[in-house]
Amino acid sequence: MIFASDNWAGAHPAVSDHLAANSGGYATAYGNSEVDARVAKTFCDIFEREVGVYFVSTGTAANSLSMTALARPAGVAFAHAEAHMIADEGGAPEYLAGGLRLCPVDGALGRMDPTMLEEAIGRYPAAFLHSGQPAAVSITQATEIGTVHSLDDIDTIAGIARRHGLPLHMDGARFANALVALDTTPAEMTWKRGVDIVSFGATKNGCWCAEAIVVMEPDKHEALPFLRKRAAQLFSKSRFVALQFEAYFRDDLWLSTARHSNAMAARLAEAFRASNAVRLAWEPQANEVFAIMSRERAENFRRRGAIFHPWATPRGYEGVGADETICRFVTSFATTVEDVDGFTRLLAS
Amino acid sequence: MIFASDNWAGAHPAVSDHLAANSGGYATAYGNSEVDARVAKTFCDIFEREVGVYFVSTGTAANSLSMTALARPAGVAFAHAEAHMIADEGGAPEYLAGGLRLCPVDGALGRMDPTMLEEAIGRYPAAFLHSGQPAAVSITQATEIGTVHSLDDIDTIAGIARRHGLPLHMDGARFANALVALDTTPAEMTWKRGVDIVSFGATKNGCWCAEAIVVMEPDKHEALPFLRKRAAQLFSKSRFVALQFEAYFRDDLWLSTARHSNAMAARLAEAFRASNAVRLAWEPQANEVFAIMSRERAENFRRRGAIFHPWATPRGYEGVGADETICRFVTSFATTVEDVDGFTRLLAS
Amino acid sequence: MIFASDNWAGAHPAVSDHLAANSGGYATAYGNSEVDARVAKTFCDIFEREVGVYFVSTGTAANSLSMTALARPAGVAFAHAEAHMIADEGGAPEYLAGGLRLCPVDGALGRMDPTMLEEAIGRYPAAFLHSGQPAAVSITQATEIGTVHSLDDIDTIAGIARRHGLPLHMDGARFANALVALDTTPAEMTWKRGVDIVSFGATKNGCWCAEAIVVMEPDKHEALPFLRKRAAQLFSKSRFVALQFEAYFRDDLWLSTARHSNAMAARLAEAFRASNAVRLAWEPQANEVFAIMSRERAENFRRRGAIFHPWATPRGYEGVGADETICRFVTSFATTVEDVDGFTRLLAS
Amino acid sequence: MIFASDNWAGAHPAVSDHLAANSGGYATAYGNSEVDARVAKTFCDIFEREVGVYFVSTGTAANSLSMTALARPAGVAFAHAEAHMIADEGGAPEYLAGGLRLCPVDGALGRMDPTMLEEAIGRYPAAFLHSGQPAAVSITQATEIGTVHSLDDIDTIAGIARRHGLPLHMDGARFANALVALDTTPAEMTWKRGVDIVSFGATKNGCWCAEAIVVMEPDKHEALPFLRKRAAQLFSKSRFVALQFEAYFRDDLWLSTARHSNAMAARLAEAFRASNAVRLAWEPQANEVFAIMSRERAENFRRRGAIFHPWATPRGYEGVGADETICRFVTSFATTVEDVDGFTRLLAS
Repeated sequence: MIFASDNWAGAHPAVSDHLAANSGGYATAYGNSEVDARVAKTFCDIFEREVGVYFVSTGTAANSLSMTALARPAGVAFAHAEAHMIADEGGAPEYLAGGLRLCPVDGALGRMDPTMLEEAIGRYPAAFLHSGQPAAVSITQATEIGTVHSLDDIDTIAGIARRHGLPLHMDGARFANALVALDTTPAEMTWKRGVDIVSFGATKNGCWCAEAIVVMEPDKHEALPFLRKRAAQLFSKSRFVALQFEAYFRDDLWLSTARHSNAMAARLAEAFRASNAVRLAWEPQANEVFAIMSRERAENFRRRGAIFHPWATPRGYEGVGADETICRFVTSFATTVEDVDGFTRLLAS
Repeated sequence: MIFASDNWAGAHPAVSDHLAANSGGYATAYGNSEVDARVAKTFCDIFEREVGVYFVSTGTAANSLSMTALARPAGVAFAHAEAHMIADEGGAPEYLAGGLRLCPVDGALGRMDPTMLEEAIGRYPAAFLHSGQPAAVSITQATEIGTVHSLDDIDTIAGIARRHGLPLHMDGARFANALVALDTTPAEMTWKRGVDIVSFGATKNGCWCAEAIVVMEPDKHEALPFLRKRAAQLFSKSRFVALQFEAYFRDDLWLSTARHSNAMAARLAEAFRASNAVRLAWEPQANEVFAIMSRERAENFRRRGAIFHPWATPRGYEGVGADETICRFVTSFATTVEDVDGFTRLLAS
Repeated sequence: MIFASDNWAGAHPAVSDHLAANSGGYATAYGNSEVDARVAKTFCDIFEREVGVYFVSTGTAANSLSMTALARPAGVAFAHAEAHMIADEGGAPEYLAGGLRLCPVDGALGRMDPTMLEEAIGRYPAAFLHSGQPAAVSITQATEIGTVHSLDDIDTIAGIARRHGLPLHMDGARFANALVALDTTPAEMTWKRGVDIVSFGATKNGCWCAEAIVVMEPDKHEALPFLRKRAAQLFSKSRFVALQFEAYFRDDLWLSTARHSNAMAARLAEAFRASNAVRLAWEPQANEVFAIMSRERAENFRRRGAIFHPWATPRGYEGVGADETICRFVTSFATTVEDVDGFTRLLAS
Repeated sequence: MIFASDNWAGAHPAVSDHLAANSGGYATAYGNSEVDARVAKTFCDIFEREVGVYFVSTGTAANSLSMTALARPAGVAFAHAEAHMIADEGGAPEYLAGGLRLCPVDGALGRMDPTMLEEAIGRYPAAFLHSGQPAAVSITQATEIGTVHSLDDIDTIAGIARRHGLPLHMDGARFANALVALDTTPAEMTWKRGVDIVSFGATKNGCWCAEAIVVMEPDKHEALPFLRKRAAQLFSKSRFVALQFEAYFRDDLWLSTARHSNAMAARLAEAFRASNAVRLAWEPQANEVFAIMSRERAENFRRRGAIFHPWATPRGYEGVGADETICRFVTSFATTVEDVDGFTRLLAS
C-alpha cells in the first residue's frame, strides 16, 4: 500500500528488459548513437512535427534548462504558486537560468487564474528597466495536485502568453497521465495549443531515468546543446536513456502505464467518495488523489501499513478542519488493484 | 577494433544484470533508499574512513560540483592545461561554480610541473583584492593522456596545495585504472596523500551512469546536498545509480575490469613498440595508448575498420613530424584480446 | 514644483563645495586613502561600534551585495512585496547573489505582516532539500511608501528572524528620513534591534553618489571586499565618495536635510488634508506623500507645472475609485516652502 | 614625485568646476536628463557615427559588461595574458558575464601575438560541444605596460577576429593616451579598424568617476540597458557622470591632458635613458614608463620621496638580473615638470 510517490516505483519490466538486452556492444557517445537518433525520430512522430530532443538527468534539469533557454536579462517566468519549479526544485531554475525570477501566480486547483496571470505579467512592463522583463509562462500538465488543464485551459493561457510575446513552457513530469486523461494527442496538447517547449518526463511513468526537453522549433534553440553541456547534463553513455525511451514508446507502453495509473487513482477516489470518515479534497483527474482526514486517522492508516505523505493546504483553499490534514496518494504503473483494495478495506474498517 | 573511447562501451553484464534483477518494487526516492545507504557504507569501507558520497549524472557534474563546493569569490582553481575540466567540459565548472576561473598549468605527460604550479598560485596572492583568490588544486588520476601520478607525485602536489591552504581535488574519471596501475588502495591514493575530494567515476569502467563526489571530511561540506539539488543533479530514482555501484564493487569487479583494460592497453602498446611504422608517443600506464603515425597510415587503419581519434599535440611536446599525427587508443572492460590482436595484425601488414 | 523623486535633486551645496575643495592632489586609490579611513571612522562613531563600511555606486548595488554576503545555496530572502529589491532593481539582487530567490511578503503600509512573514519562512524548512533555504530577512526603512518601521516594529521582525537563525538586512536608501522621523539614533534603529547589515543611502538625501554597505560584525564578512570587487563596485578614486560622506556627516548635515525633507512632506500632507478634492492615501511619516485624486485632476496639476508620478495601488489596499489614481509626491533637501505652497495653491484653485 | 598610478590623481579643475557649477537644480534620473542626452550626442560626434553610450561606475564594470554583452554559453574571450581583465579585475568579468572564460594569449610588449591568438582560438572550434565557444577578442589600448597598438596592429587582430566571426572589444581605460600617441581619431582607432565595443575610460585622465561602454552598432545591443541595470550599474543621478564627460570633451580637454601625461612620461623616459644605473625596460608610448633597477636603488628612491610600484616581469621577458626589479612609473594630467625633474635629479645623484 505504497502511495508515497510515483518515483518510489522502480522501472517497468519492459523498460528494464530492453535495457538489459541492449547494454552490450559499442555505441557512439554523447548522444550520437543510432538509438539516440532513432528515439529522436520517434519523438518527431509522436509530436507530428520536427522537434528537438535533449535528454537530461532529472525533471528539475528539464525545467531549469527550459527556463535557461528562454531566459532574458532580469527575466521573470510565471508559474502556478505550487508549481514544482517554484516549490520543489531547490533553487535550480533560478541558479541555472542565471538569476531568473519565478513569479508565483495563484489559481484554483493547480491552474493559474487567467486574470491573475494577466495582472502578474502586467507588473513587469517589458520596456521598463527597473522591474524585470517577462520571459516565459509555464504550466504543469498534469498539475502538482493531480488535476489536468483542459485543451481550452491551455488555449486560454497560451493566448495570454502570445499577447505578451512570451513563450509557453509545459512541465510534463506527468505528461502521459494528462494525455490519457484528456484522451488527446501530444500535438493537440502542446504546439497546436501554443506550447513552445516541454519538459517531457518518463521517469515517474515507468522508466528509471528518462527526461527530455522537447522544443517545437529547434531552429530557435541552437544554443540548447551548449546550455545542456554547460549544465553538466550531457550523458556520455546517452544511449541508455534513449533505450528507456525506446521501450517506453514501443507498443504505446507509456499510454498503457499512464492509463493504469490513472485508473488506480480513480479506483482509490471511489473508495474515498464512499467513505464516511475521509473525503476527497478535490476531484482527481490523473494519478494523484488528495483526501482530507483527521490527523489521528492518517496516523492510524500509516501504522497499519499505508505509506503516503501529507500535503500543505493550497493557498486560498478552505474547508480543512483544525485537526485535519490533506494527504496525497500517488499511483503508478506499479500500483495494483490489490494495493488499492487493501487500502479501501482499511478505510472501511 | 573500437578504441574510440571507454564511454563507447556499454555496461558490464554484472552491472546490467544487477540492475535488471532489482528494478522492481518500491524504494524511497532522492537518495534515501536502503541500497543508497548500503552503497554509501561500501564507499566508507573502500576508503577506510567516513566519507560523504553524492551521486551525480556525469563526470562533468562531479568535477563542477566539486569545484562549486570549494569555490570562493573570485576563486581560481589550478589544473593541468589538458585536464578534462579545462579542455572538455563546455564551461560547466565555470558556470556551476559561479564564475570560477580555471588556471591551466603546464607540465610533461599530463602532470602539472610543481614549479609551474607554485608560480601559478603565486600570481594570485590570497589577500590581494585585484587578482583573484586561489581556491583549489585539481589533479586527474589517471591523467587525460593515460599516465598516472605516482604516490610521490601526489604527495608533491598535495604539499604545495597544503602550504597555500588550498584543498586538493582529484578527477577520478579513471580512478580504478590508476589504482590498479599503482597497485595501491583508495585510501593511500587519496586522503593519506592529502586529497580532500574526489570525482569518483565508474561509468567508463563498466557502469552506464555512475558517478559520485566523495568528500573525505563530510562535516566540512554540509552545503553539498543543497549544491547538488540546485544543480539539478539529485536523481529521484537514485537507487538505480546505487545499484550500479553495488554491482561495481561486488567481488572487486571494478578492479578486475580496470586491470583488464590496462592489460589490453599494455598489449596494444607492445604492438606499437614492435612496429616500424608507428611509435608510442609516451609510455602508457593505464587504459589509454597514444601513438604517432603518418596521417595517411591513420586513415588507412580507419578504412580497414579501426576506430580511434586524433589527439592534439600537448603543448611543449616535440617530435611529431609535419605529416604525422598523435592518435589515441582507449581500451575498456569490453576490449577483447581479439580486438587488440586484430589491430596488431593491421599494424604489421 | 518637482515632486518626482528625491533623486531628481542635485547635490547639496555643502557636499558639492567639499568635493570641489578637495578634488586636487593625490590620494591612494581603491579605498585606501586617508579620507576613506576618516569616513570609516565616522561611521563607527555614528553607529557607536566597530562597523565595516563598503562604498558602492548605487542603492541597488548596496542591496544586491548585502544579499550576496548573506546568500546560501538555494537561498531565499524575505522582503515586503513592494520592497525596492523586489519591485525596482531589475533582477540585480537575484543575479549578483547567484540566483537568490526574493520571496514577497504582504503587509499593510509597506511593512511585512509578522504572521505572514512567519508563514512565508515556514514554507522553506531549513533542512529540507527541495524547497530552498531561508537566507535573510530584509526591511526597508523608511518604506517605499513613506511610512516608517517603529523600533517596536523592527523588534518584532528581528525576533522572527532571530528565531529562524536568519540575518536581518535594512534597506536604508532613506535611512536618514526614518531616523529623524523616529527621533532616534543609528545604533537604536539598527544593531540594538537586531539589524545585521544596512544599505546606507546618502544619494537621495543630498549627495550625488554615496551609498555604503554597513556591517555590524565585520569579522563575519571577510569576503565582502572580494564580493564587491567581483561585482565591479570598487571605485578607483574612492576618495570622492568618501568626501561626499564627510560633508554629509559634518555638522549633522544629513539630519538637517532629512528633517527638512520630512517637514516639507508634512507641509504637503497638511495641504492634502485641507483639500476637498484630493485626499491622503495614508499618513506620511518620512519624505514621501501619497494622495488619491481623479486622473483628470492629476493631469490638470501636471499641465499647470507640477511633476509627480502615479503609483500602483498596493495589493490589498482598498478605496481607490475607478477613475482615481494614487500619486506619489517626494520631497528632498532641495524642496522649498515655495514649491509646496505653490502646489497648495494649485490644489485649492 | 608620485608615479604610483594615474588613479591616485584627483579630478582636473575643469571637471571639478563644471560639476560644482551644475550640481544644483533638478534633472531626470537614471540617465534620462538633458545633460545625459547632450553627452551621448557628443560621443556620436567624436566617433563620427551613431553609437550607444552606457555610463558605468568603474573600468572593471565597463569591461565586464562589455563581455556580458558579447557572452555566449560556454563562452571564451581572448585577451593578452597581462590584460587588466585577466590580471586585475578580481573575477568580475567571469562572474558578471555568467561564467565566461578568459583565455590568456601571450605576446611581446603587451600585444597579443597574432599567431598565438589564432592558435588559441583554434583550440575552441565553434561547433564543438566540449571545448567552449569563442565569444570575443579583447585588446587593451594603451596596453597595460604603456605601449600602444598601431592602427596596423589593430587591423591584424581585427582581421583574425572577423575571420572567426568574433566581435572585437577594446579596453580603453587609457583610450585618450593611445589616441594622442597615434595622432589619430576615435573613428580610425576603433570601428574603422573593426572594433565593435569600447570600454571608454575618463577617470584616469582627469575625471573622478567617468567610464562608459560605447557600442558601434546600438541595434545589436538592445539588451545592454537591462544588463547594466541587472549589474547594479545604473546611476540614479547619472547627470553627474554626464557632467564630467561634458567637461572632459569641452575644448578637447581630454586630448590636452592625455598629451600632457604622455609628454611627462617621455620626459621621464629621457631621464632613464640618460642614467647609468637605471634602464628602460621597453620604450614607452603612452603615460607609463617601466624601468629596470636594483631593488636596493628602488628602495633608496622610495626613501627619498618617490612613490612607484614594482611590476611583475612579463612572461617571456628576459634581461632582469636576480637582484633587479622592473618598476612602473605612471604619469597623469596632474604630473608636473617639477615632479619629473625632481625624480631626474634623484636618479642622477
